[in-house]
Amino acid sequence: MADLTHFDADGRAHMVDVSDKPSTDRIAQAEGFVRMAEETFALIRDGKAKKGDVLGVARLAGIMGAKKTADLIPLCHPLPITKVALDLTPDETLPGIRIKATVKTTGQTGVEMEALTAVTTAALTVYDMAKAVDRAMEIGGIRVILKDGGKSGRYEAA
Amino acid sequence: MADLTHFDADGRAHMVDVSDKPSTDRIAQAEGFVRMAEETFALIRDGKAKKGDVLGVARLAGIMGAKKTADLIPLCHPLPITKVALDLTPDETLPGIRIKATVKTTGQTGVEMEALTAVTTAALTVYDMAKAVDRAMEIGGIRVILKDGGKSGRYEAA
Amino acid sequence: MADLTHFDADGRAHMVDVSDKPSTDRIAQAEGFVRMAEETFALIRDGKAKKGDVLGVARLAGIMGAKKTADLIPLCHPLPITKVALDLTPDETLPGIRIKATVKTTGQTGVEMEALTAVTTAALTVYDMAKAVDRAMEIGGIRVILKDGGKSGRYEAA
Amino acid sequence: MADLTHFDADGRAHMVDVSDKPSTDRIAQAEGFVRMAEETFALIRDGKAKKGDVLGVARLAGIMGAKKTADLIPLCHPLPITKVALDLTPDETLPGIRIKATVKTTGQTGVEMEALTAVTTAALTVYDMAKAVDRAMEIGGIRVILKDGGKSGRYEAA
Amino acid sequence: MADLTHFDADGRAHMVDVSDKPSTDRIAQAEGFVRMAEETFALIRDGKAKKGDVLGVARLAGIMGAKKTADLIPLCHPLPITKVALDLTPDETLPGIRIKATVKTTGQTGVEMEALTAVTTAALTVYDMAKAVDRAMEIGGIRVILKDGGKSGRYEAA
Amino acid sequence: MADLTHFDADGRAHMVDVSDKPSTDRIAQAEGFVRMAEETFALIRDGKAKKGDVLGVARLAGIMGAKKTADLIPLCHPLPITKVALDLTPDETLPGIRIKATVKTTGQTGVEMEALTAVTTAALTVYDMAKAVDRAMEIGGIRVILKDGGKSGRYEAA
Repeated sequence: MADLTHFDADGRAHMVDVSDKPSTDRIAQAEGFVRMAEETFALIRDGKAKKGDVLGVARLAGIMGAKKTADLIPLCHPLPITKVALDLTPDETLPGIRIKATVKTTGQTGVEMEALTAVTTAALTVYDMAKAVDRAMEIGGIRVILKDGGKSGRYEAA
Repeated sequence: MADLTHFDADGRAHMVDVSDKPSTDRIAQAEGFVRMAEETFALIRDGKAKKGDVLGVARLAGIMGAKKTADLIPLCHPLPITKVALDLTPDETLPGIRIKATVKTTGQTGVEMEALTAVTTAALTVYDMAKAVDRAMEIGGIRVILKDGGKSGRYEAA
Repeated sequence: MADLTHFDADGRAHMVDVSDKPSTDRIAQAEGFVRMAEETFALIRDGKAKKGDVLGVARLAGIMGAKKTADLIPLCHPLPITKVALDLTPDETLPGIRIKATVKTTGQTGVEMEALTAVTTAALTVYDMAKAVDRAMEIGGIRVILKDGGKSGRYEAA
Repeated sequence: MADLTHFDADGRAHMVDVSDKPSTDRIAQAEGFVRMAEETFALIRDGKAKKGDVLGVARLAGIMGAKKTADLIPLCHPLPITKVALDLTPDETLPGIRIKATVKTTGQTGVEMEALTAVTTAALTVYDMAKAVDRAMEIGGIRVILKDGGKSGRYEAA
Repeated sequence: MADLTHFDADGRAHMVDVSDKPSTDRIAQAEGFVRMAEETFALIRDGKAKKGDVLGVARLAGIMGAKKTADLIPLCHPLPITKVALDLTPDETLPGIRIKATVKTTGQTGVEMEALTAVTTAALTVYDMAKAVDRAMEIGGIRVILKDGGKSGRYEAA
Repeated sequence: MADLTHFDADGRAHMVDVSDKPSTDRIAQAEGFVRMAEETFALIRDGKAKKGDVLGVARLAGIMGAKKTADLIPLCHPLPITKVALDLTPDETLPGIRIKATVKTTGQTGVEMEALTAVTTAALTVYDMAKAVDRAMEIGGIRVILKDGGKSGRYEAA
C-alpha cells in the first residue's frame, strides 16, 4: 500500500508539490445526509412556502463553504472553482435531508475536498437552523461518489 | 412543536436577536467518526512514529475550524471561544478514527455549532490526508453529545 | 468641527482606543436600493415562486457580510454582533429593490458600519444575480437611518 | 428577456458552470461616490498634509476589498486578479468623494463584481473615517462603467 | 520550569481553557525592524511626499493584521481588540524602518500575539513594497517589549 | 535606482498590473529563526516525544499562513500555490529554532511573499506555544534566500 503523500520521507506534513501536474478539467461529487425526528422533517419539508426555506439557506452555505475549503483543510491546495451545485432532497425514509454536491475546476488537483466541504457545510447549516426544535439530529453518510479528470482516472463509489 | 427560530414571522432568514440573553458559561461536546479500510487504519494508527502524524494535523484543523464557525454557518453568532479540545482515537472495531470535540465560551448563545464544526473539519482533514490510499472512507455519526449552560438547560445525548 | 478620530495628532491612522468606553446595548439601521430596468424588476419580483429567490440569497449575503465588517473596513473594531436582520422590498416606483438592515450588539462601539456593510453586500449580491440580464443597474441611497445606544445619543436620519 | 443564470431550471441557486469558457483577458471599471457636508469635505480634502490621509486609507481598503469579492458574494467565482487600481477624487460640486475602480484578470468570468466591491469598500471606509463628524453622509451612484474581454463583448455605460 | 500549556498531559495540542479567568484590561507592545540598503531607505523615507507612502500602507496592514491573529496562530483565542496603533520610524543607523505596535483589549487572555502579528505584518508589507528595488532586506528584532493586565503581572523587556 | 512599483506616477498605491506577464513556474525560499532561553529550547527540542510537538504545530501554521498571504499583504496578488514545505530545525548554537520555507507556483508573479509569510507565521506560532515559559524570545533573520522563475532571473542571497 502506498504511503501517505501529505508527509515527506521524515514524516513531516507538507503541501504536496503539484507544479508538474498538467491542468485538466476535473469533477467531483460527494453526498451525505442529516437524519432527524419526524416532526423536524415535516417542519423543514413544509417550510419553504410558509415558515422559511431551510434548504435554500443550507444550499447557499454549501456553495460558499466549497470556496473556503483551502482555508479549512490545512494541506489542501487553493483552486479556482468553476462550478458548484448542491441538491438537498427531503427523504421521508430517513427521515431527513439527503445532500449531494457537484464541484468542477480546471486545475492541477482534484476537487473532492471541495465537494465534501460543500456537503458538510450544508449539513451543519441544516442542523443549525433546526437545532432549537431537535438536538438529536445526526449527520452522516458523507463520502465521495464520483471523481474524474485526474491522473488516477475515474472513481465511482460502489 | 416550536417554529424554526432562524426565520421571522414571514419566513425570512435572520440572525436571531440574543441581546437580551444573559452572558453565561457554556459548554458543548460533539462526536463523529471516519470509517476506512483496514490498511488505511493501520497506516494512520502506526503513522505517528514513522510516517506522519495524521491525527495531530486533524486535531489542529479541528481547533482552527471551531474558530471559523460563524464564517461558515450563515446565521450563527460570532462568539469568543474560551476553550477547544479534540480527541482523535483510533478504533479498530470501525475500523477508523473516533473524534470528540469540547468547546467552551462565556456568551449569549451556545457553542454546539462550534463543537460540530470542529468535529467535521477534523474528519475532513483525516479524509484529505488519507485519500490518496483510500477514496471510499466515510464520515458519519456526527452529533451533539452534551450541551450545557444556556436557558434550555443541560442536554445529554441518549 | 471635530477632527477625524481615526488619525492621531500626527495624522497617522490608528484603531481608536475604546477600552475605557462602557459596554452598552447598541442598535443601528441602514438603508439603500438597487435601481434596475422594468424587466429586471419583474424577473426578480416574480422570481421567488418560479425562477429563483434573488431576495433570499441577497438577504443571506447581507447577514454574512455584516459579520465580515471588521475584515473589510481597516480601522473598524471587531464586535460580537447579537442580531442582524434585512428587509428587501421590491419597489415598483424605483423600479428596484429597497434594502434595510438592522444590527444590534452589546459592546463598546456602534454598529452602523455593520448595518451599512449588510446593505451594500446585499445590494452587490442583487447586482451579481441579475447582471446577466441588466448591466446598467445602479446601487445608491446608502445611509444610516438610526443609531442608538452610545455616548453620542440617538441619531435618526432626517 | 433571458432568465437569471444563477438559478437552475428548478429555481435553485448555484455557482454557474464556467468550465467550458475560454480564459481571456478581462477588464472592468466601476464608479460611485460618497456625498457629505461641506465641512466634512473640507476636512478630508485638506487632510492629507495635516490631519490624516482618508483617501489613502480608503484606496487601500478598496484594493483589499476587491480580493474578498468571492468571499462576500455567494455565487461569485474566485478569480486570480491581476490588477486593481482606485481613483478617489474630491469633487466640490457634490460635495464629496468620487471613486473609480479598475480591475483586470485573465480568467473565465468577468471582474465587474470585483470592481463594484472595490468601490463600495472604499466608500464604506470613507464613511467610517468621517462618521464621527458627519453621520448623514450618503453612498450612491455605484455602477459598472466598463466591462470588456468576455463572450458578451464590450459594455460601456451610457 | 513550567510545561508548555498549549499541550495537555498527553502532549496533545489544545486551545487552553480560559473560561475561569477574569476579563481584565490588557495591553501589549511589540517591536521589530526591517533593515535595507541605503538607497532603499532613502526611497522610503523621502517617499511620502513624492513617490508613495510606504509607511502609511504598512501601518494599515499592521492594524488589519492584528485583527487576523486568531486566524493565523492555531491555538490563539479570538479577542475583541479595543485599540491598535503602530509607529513606523525611519532609522538611518540601521538603515531601515523601526516598527512598534500597541494593542489593547478587555478580555481573558493577553494581546502580545496581536502586537507581534501587527509588527510582522507591517514588516512584511514594507518588504513587499520595496522588494522590486532591494531583495536583500532583512526583518528582525521582533519581540514583546511590554505586557500588562493579566494574572502574571507586568512584563517589560530588558 | 528604480521607483517603488507599488505606487503610480502620482504616488498612489495600487496592485501592479501583471496581466501581460507570462505564467511561469516559480519558486522562492525564505528563512528566519526564533531565539530563546536554553530551558525553552530544551523543552521544545525534547517535546515531540513527551510534551507536545511545537514544531509540528508551527509547521502546519506556516503552511496555512502561506495560503493567507494575499489576505495579509495589501498589494499582493492572489496566487494558486502549488507547493509549500517548511523545515523547522532546533539549533543549539542560537539557541532556538531555524525555519526555512519553500513555496512554488505557476503564475504571473513570484512567491517570495508567500515564503516570508510562511516563515513569520511559523515563528509567531513557536512564540505563542512557548510564551508561557519564556517571554523574551526574539524572532529575526527573516529574509529571502532564493527566488527563481520570473523575468528578473535567479536570486540567491549572499
